[in-house]
Amino acid sequence: MIEMKSWLPIAAESDFSIYNLPFGIYSQKGGKKHVGIAIGDKVVNLFGLSENQMLDVASAFFAQDYLNDFIRLGKNVTRKVRLDVQRLLCEEDSPLRASPELLIDQSEVQMHLPVRIGDYTDFYSSIEHATNVGVMFRDPEHALLPNWKHIPVGYHGRASSIVVSGVPIHRPMGQVLPKDATEPVFAASSRVDFELEMGYIIGKDTSLGDRVSTAEAEEYIFGKVLFNDWSARDIQKWEYVPLGPFLAKNFGSSVSPWVVTMEALEPFRVAGPKQETKVLPYLEATGDRNFDIQLEVAISPEGSEEQVVSRSNFKHMYWNMAQQLAHHTVNGCDVHVGDMMASGTISGPTPDAYGSMLELAWAGTKPLEMRDGTVRRFIEDGDTVTMRGYADKDGVRVGFGEVSAQVLPAKVY
Amino acid sequence: MIEMKSWLPIAAESDFSIYNLPFGIYSQKGGKKHVGIAIGDKVVNLFGLSENQMLDVASAFFAQDYLNDFIRLGKNVTRKVRLDVQRLLCEEDSPLRASPELLIDQSEVQMHLPVRIGDYTDFYSSIEHATNVGVMFRDPEHALLPNWKHIPVGYHGRASSIVVSGVPIHRPMGQVLPKDATEPVFAASSRVDFELEMGYIIGKDTSLGDRVSTAEAEEYIFGKVLFNDWSARDIQKWEYVPLGPFLAKNFGSSVSPWVVTMEALEPFRVAGPKQETKVLPYLEATGDRNFDIQLEVAISPEGSEEQVVSRSNFKHMYWNMAQQLAHHTVNGCDVHVGDMMASGTISGPTPDAYGSMLELAWAGTKPLEMRDGTVRRFIEDGDTVTMRGYADKDGVRVGFGEVSAQVLPAKVY
Repeated sequence: MIEMKSWLPIAAESDFSIYNLPFGIYSQKGGKKHVGIAIGDKVVNLFGLSENQMLDVASAFFAQDYLNDFIRLGKNVTRKVRLDVQRLLCEEDSPLRASPELLIDQSEVQMHLPVRIGDYTDFYSSIEHATNVGVMFRDPEHALLPNWKHIPVGYHGRASSIVVSGVPIHRPMGQVLPKDATEPVFAASSRVDFELEMGYIIGKDTSLGDRVSTAEAEEYIFGKVLFNDWSARDIQKWEYVPLGPFLAKNFGSSVSPWVVTMEALEPFRVAGPKQETKVLPYLEATGDRNFDIQLEVAISPEGSEEQVVSRSNFKHMYWNMAQQLAHHTVNGCDVHVGDMMASGTISGPTPDAYGSMLELAWAGTKPLEMRDGTVRRFIEDGDTVTMRGYADKDGVRVGFGEVSAQVLPAKVY
Repeated sequence: MIEMKSWLPIAAESDFSIYNLPFGIYSQKGGKKHVGIAIGDKVVNLFGLSENQMLDVASAFFAQDYLNDFIRLGKNVTRKVRLDVQRLLCEEDSPLRASPELLIDQSEVQMHLPVRIGDYTDFYSSIEHATNVGVMFRDPEHALLPNWKHIPVGYHGRASSIVVSGVPIHRPMGQVLPKDATEPVFAASSRVDFELEMGYIIGKDTSLGDRVSTAEAEEYIFGKVLFNDWSARDIQKWEYVPLGPFLAKNFGSSVSPWVVTMEALEPFRVAGPKQETKVLPYLEATGDRNFDIQLEVAISPEGSEEQVVSRSNFKHMYWNMAQQLAHHTVNGCDVHVGDMMASGTISGPTPDAYGSMLELAWAGTKPLEMRDGTVRRFIEDGDTVTMRGYADKDGVRVGFGEVSAQVLPAKVY
């Protein structure tokens, strides 16, 4: 990697190094939404750069509520914008350096949902997670279902209820089946859980009937975010057979605001777990298709210090993004710019790397201790759950910031 | 009902009577998309009506690719537009009568997808269908799963692959598990099926955390369409446990182009089937919540006459739309203008009223004979499947036209 240095002071531990430069949607107090790039503790005002002839993309593409129209310009354009900003932040005599008003403090902006999400698909691609769930709820001897090693299992989720980091989530009400009962009751979920996931955002449209091969897949991926797929385990248990999770998942999902591009993640490629069961040819993917991204989850009880409860890594994913997208489109299903594809819970091989409370506290049998002395089997009202992620190699750090949200009490009508 | 008569000649058997006046998106050769209303064999050019001061809604709302912005004006406005058009079509000295160019032959327009669909949910609300599936694939003694009479079971579908009537659908490729095999193969589905459904379109936004009661639900429903939820039964069987149908359903769904408003359906309200299992209070819905809408499905083998294979009725639905929407939002999930909610397969109580080939040919064991002497267990390449629906009472007919699509051979790469 070519070493780069900005004239802007950037903390060594910043997720938003000169090597990162993720895109997001921000607004200043009372102002309109704009496309920005994060650098250190600043936001680069791309609209301003364009208006001042520092970028060769029309400023209208940066005065947007969502990144979709910008992304739709194509990777040739979006890559160049990112590289132009990198150059502007490095060159000693850069015109940006002479325009400090185009660098806004992150503390002065509000971040918004980065893309208008058309469709949202959630995969189930961590073998550790799928195995843990199978051991707990089915048969430890046959924890994985017969299709799991053949199919990157996925299902459709609700796009409308995906919100940006910071938006609180109300505990859902719903139907749950009390232990040993045969009739459900209506109640607030008592098993609200997080799921540590990462999402990727589609960067290029296909048409109905088109297929994206594993070789082409990454050209269709714009970038990645952290994704908390909030789940209500008790609602899920009663509703999900035979058509899958519904109200247990669609009361809210939280995403981090900065979209880290595939280009920024390139240095962190690694091989994935070996797939010993031979996959069908359309799922074969050569080369290093995983990414070494360290992940952590912390819980902060209201008014108390946070406790990190999980440290996992995206590199554990059994099915990679290229396989997921090739599978999703093999039947001709069309994808579009802004679609969100989430990984499924990212559990690692050791118990401290599990990606949900369900697994960490093993269905409530192994409660976790918080710093304030309380214990957690699931998430309590007032708790804030924060997920962080970053890649780090040879002194180069590319991070995602965080996705954080507080769980509020159920709204009772 | 007040008897109405238009000065425009309208065939007695037309779905698009003066009592109907559904909204849709049409274009003329080379022209832009516009909002229109169907009447007899004509389309009313609402943009033209507005430009000529015959409507008090700005013409920009009718120069649209989708109905969403028009619907978002609210029922007070959309109801009035429909009534204004009704009046313009009835009054002898109407200015519309003096402007015949504002009534375009339906044969001269192309119809388009009526709404930009945000999210799509598919329910599973016919007790006959759920029972038939249970008898075939599970246990005839316990055909319905324990949750079925407590929950209007639903799941998220793919919005992007919903297309308007007339768009052909390619047979999907995918993973299927051959009989007695343990390893899947990659093949074209050999069990492509239709599902006779109706969809309703959300007419009013909620916010995340809001709940819509059964009493309020119909205020959130703009209107209804016919919906063919194409399914690949062999792909479905291998993939759907544990997270539900995915590639078996998202290769295409077809909808009729004209959205029949709830106001037009009002005269056809009927009581639904008695729900003998008591539902939780949030699902209680008083009054007549079903609609008497006759439905039929016909198959036309390529180059041959069509054969009607099913005659069903929307009134058989066990769970009504108000219950579906109350359930969908009880956990705070937000809904938005243009969202599509489909009923699930609408099977009636007798074998000739089943809403899918799976049920009509009873998993392939009772093939149906076509007029050309061939038989059908599932849908063959070249077959066109057409669904029609209309309500009829006291000489008043309100119909949906049709949703029709041909199945093309799989695209082999």
